[in-house]
Amino acid sequence: MPPTPGDDPRTPGRIGGNRHVMARRSFVDVADLGLPVDVPSTALFTDQYELTMLRAALKAGTAGRRSVFEVFTRRLPDGRRYGVVAGTGRVLDAVENFRFDADVLRFLREQDVVDEETLDWLAQYRFSGDIWGYPEGEVYFPGSPIMRVEGTFGECVLLETVILSILNHDSAIAAAASRMSSAAGPRPLIEMGARRTHELAAVAAARSAYVGGFATTSDLAAGFRYNIPTVGTSAHAFTLLHDNERDAFRAQVDALGRDTTLLVDTYDVAEAVRTAVEVAGPELGAVRIDSGDLLLVAHRVRQQLDELGATETKIVVTSDLDEYAIASLAAAPVDAYGVGTQLVTGSGHPTASMVYKLVARAESGAEGAPLVPVAKKSSGGKTSVGGRKWAARRLDADGHAEAEVVGTGPVPDALADRQLLVELVKGGEVVAREPLDAARDRHAAARANLPLSATQLSRGEPVIPTEYAHGGSGS
Amino acid sequence: MPPTPGDDPRTPGRIGGNRHVMARRSFVDVADLGLPVDVPSTALFTDQYELTMLRAALKAGTAGRRSVFEVFTRRLPDGRRYGVVAGTGRVLDAVENFRFDADVLRFLREQDVVDEETLDWLAQYRFSGDIWGYPEGEVYFPGSPIMRVEGTFGECVLLETVILSILNHDSAIAAAASRMSSAAGPRPLIEMGARRTHELAAVAAARSAYVGGFATTSDLAAGFRYNIPTVGTSAHAFTLLHDNERDAFRAQVDALGRDTTLLVDTYDVAEAVRTAVEVAGPELGAVRIDSGDLLLVAHRVRQQLDELGATETKIVVTSDLDEYAIASLAAAPVDAYGVGTQLVTGSGHPTASMVYKLVARAESGAEGAPLVPVAKKSSGGKTSVGGRKWAARRLDADGHAEAEVVGTGPVPDALADRQLLVELVKGGEVVAREPLDAARDRHAAARANLPLSATQLSRGEPVIPTEYAHGGSGS
Repeated sequence: MPPTPGDDPRTPGRIGGNRHVMARRSFVDVADLGLPVDVPSTALFTDQYELTMLRAALKAGTAGRRSVFEVFTRRLPDGRRYGVVAGTGRVLDAVENFRFDADVLRFLREQDVVDEETLDWLAQYRFSGDIWGYPEGEVYFPGSPIMRVEGTFGECVLLETVILSILNHDSAIAAAASRMSSAAGPRPLIEMGARRTHELAAVAAARSAYVGGFATTSDLAAGFRYNIPTVGTSAHAFTLLHDNERDAFRAQVDALGRDTTLLVDTYDVAEAVRTAVEVAGPELGAVRIDSGDLLLVAHRVRQQLDELGATETKIVVTSDLDEYAIASLAAAPVDAYGVGTQLVTGSGHPTASMVYKLVARAESGAEGAPLVPVAKKSSGGKTSVGGRKWAARRLDADGHAEAEVVGTGPVPDALADRQLLVELVKGGEVVAREPLDAARDRHAAARANLPLSATQLSRGEPVIPTEYAHGGSGS
Repeated sequence: MPPTPGDDPRTPGRIGGNRHVMARRSFVDVADLGLPVDVPSTALFTDQYELTMLRAALKAGTAGRRSVFEVFTRRLPDGRRYGVVAGTGRVLDAVENFRFDADVLRFLREQDVVDEETLDWLAQYRFSGDIWGYPEGEVYFPGSPIMRVEGTFGECVLLETVILSILNHDSAIAAAASRMSSAAGPRPLIEMGARRTHELAAVAAARSAYVGGFATTSDLAAGFRYNIPTVGTSAHAFTLLHDNERDAFRAQVDALGRDTTLLVDTYDVAEAVRTAVEVAGPELGAVRIDSGDLLLVAHRVRQQLDELGATETKIVVTSDLDEYAIASLAAAPVDAYGVGTQLVTGSGHPTASMVYKLVARAESGAEGAPLVPVAKKSSGGKTSVGGRKWAARRLDADGHAEAEVVGTGPVPDALADRQLLVELVKGGEVVAREPLDAARDRHAAARANLPLSATQLSRGEPVIPTEYAHGGSGS
């Protein structure tokens, strides 16, 4: 069915609500792209070798072998105590929108990437397999089978690149966000890193930050696409535009009200705070400090505000903050933190090291052919464990997590109700849409259930060990 | 004019050729979006405060003051000797596509971000000012005015976030790519980091890598959008899918030909190399090694290939390479390098620290009102130099760069023909489209013109100093 201009294919159950969807069904029959933030097809976010492997497997008659791929990481970033699964909802969108239209097929033909048989196969492509995974917001550890993709080799191998792109990026940001939100305690965190990363990575980063515990974002696209609350008032340029700071503050208060946030470090902070309270009165919402020794300046500004009667006026600090700087301000009279660069770059770890590995495949293409576990030979630390896996989090007597148990074969009874993987896609249909707040709440609960040392900022080992329980046939 | 399905608004002069453009003019009258890689509107890749500043300035009557914003960085990443301008072509696309359609306006109204007067203003928005900048691929140093945006305050302030997103991301990747390409010398570099970064950041990263000297990419979307040559053959999964390595190699050679690249480290490398040459013959194109001690293994594999008569078969290495690992393999018998994680994460510096600052603005909104230089007071290292700037690269007697000279006021005669800024947008019209190869060639030339120590990998200071020449009115 061609798109109908003006119709509104909103889907109430979509992650984040997505109220602002545009009617642009494009060349595929998916209904609810959030353009200009989503894209109409994800099929080209793919390494060429996925398609050449498909081509060779089609020719060899092996592309139809039932296959199990798993996403996992061999290690956490150096010193980190837990990871955070993020991007799952985006993976579901990407799988739904993974279709090859005529322009893409023409490109592949011109480039001689694949042959005509493969092009015909791609034209019909629609993932029809099953995906299970850790639900979004859950924590993970080395070896956790974060996502499991099962179907024919051909349909599963194509999804490798885009699934890893999403999970590696989004999980890296969520992990940094989680540490920052631990450090901030009850004080709200504002995500404001859009200018420090790719313009669309920024939208995903705001989403991941929200999952990790941030309260708001400066990025309007993230508000549009995911309904994350957006905030923002003014920059130094606004003060510099006007003939003096008083004129600038008056212009801002006139337009945005007394409860706005005035930026007080363009010239002299003490002078600016005095002017701000004169202009807005003690009802002034907040002042923002974006440079200098934030600890020292925050104390002075708090004292000055209190002396001026602006005891309810809040203090927002922003300026190259990371989780350590946030923690160091715990005793300072600060009401909110704005975080940019360090959030969107994962605070030193801009990518997770997740891989997507074939762990089992059918002996043949025959229906019902048994699965055999497979694994690359270990070399240079690139260890893989073959076989389709389950995972469960074992609790201690107090109900806190004490081990991540990963196994093949039957799940021990004691762990049956602690299993971590949930069904996400069944026979090609997405079955696990949820609001973004569900992932955010899940993360808070999962982190709270870890041993206390999980949220120590100092470098350490994973806070619980990963144990392998090998059993059964391994398939 | 509404879009006509099937028409092909290709623009021959567009950066990278963009042969595979789809006819999806969407809600704005731009002609050549490269969907699904580009997006129809960039207006929401914007921090909320840009819009609230506009709102307040409109109300105060100051939004129409002529303003000059400049993009620059106060420092290079620690230890780096030069920066690389990348993303300029993408900025031009973003400025062209910066429009507010009905859905976006409805979102902004619902969120109460701006008032009706501002919404009306935004509905008509089209950048009508001028942009000058360093051409793409040029090198830069602390203080270099990489881009200058001039127009009314309102029209310029809105572009801050998206311009910085693009330049900060793309330049960070290009800088890493440039170091890697120096280290690789004449051996080709393959960009294969898509899986390690956001799926659309990956496309921009492949583009930046190409500017920085990479030869090819694995990312099909980058081939589609920018005509960067794409490569790729197979992963370990392909070998594991088959009953044995010989079957896998035979399947690949059958489909892709003898000049394909066979991956030889799934099980035993020596065994795999023997099998590979048996299956493909000495005409085998290449073998790829993706784990282990690459230096050692490459030597052994070269010797083995030569003994088997496969003297023309090349060796490709991939496995967490960065510029240092590439340099360490200079004496190894390696023919090409594939680089992933370290490329797309900027080899330790995933973002440049560029800022977008108001440096001059008109005394009033009156036509012809003189510009006055403005700058935030220095605090905590956040120094800005007021005034609209020029920049030139001074040469020594041998014709090599010896200083980056940045000034306000008249340009000294001796530097007049060494000026770095070029006109990019004139009265809202893009005037500087160029093929991506032009940026790539420019980068190679600019780097070659730096002092020799520029390409030392060891940590150091910027390879030439930035000198400030203050003169004239500063405007």
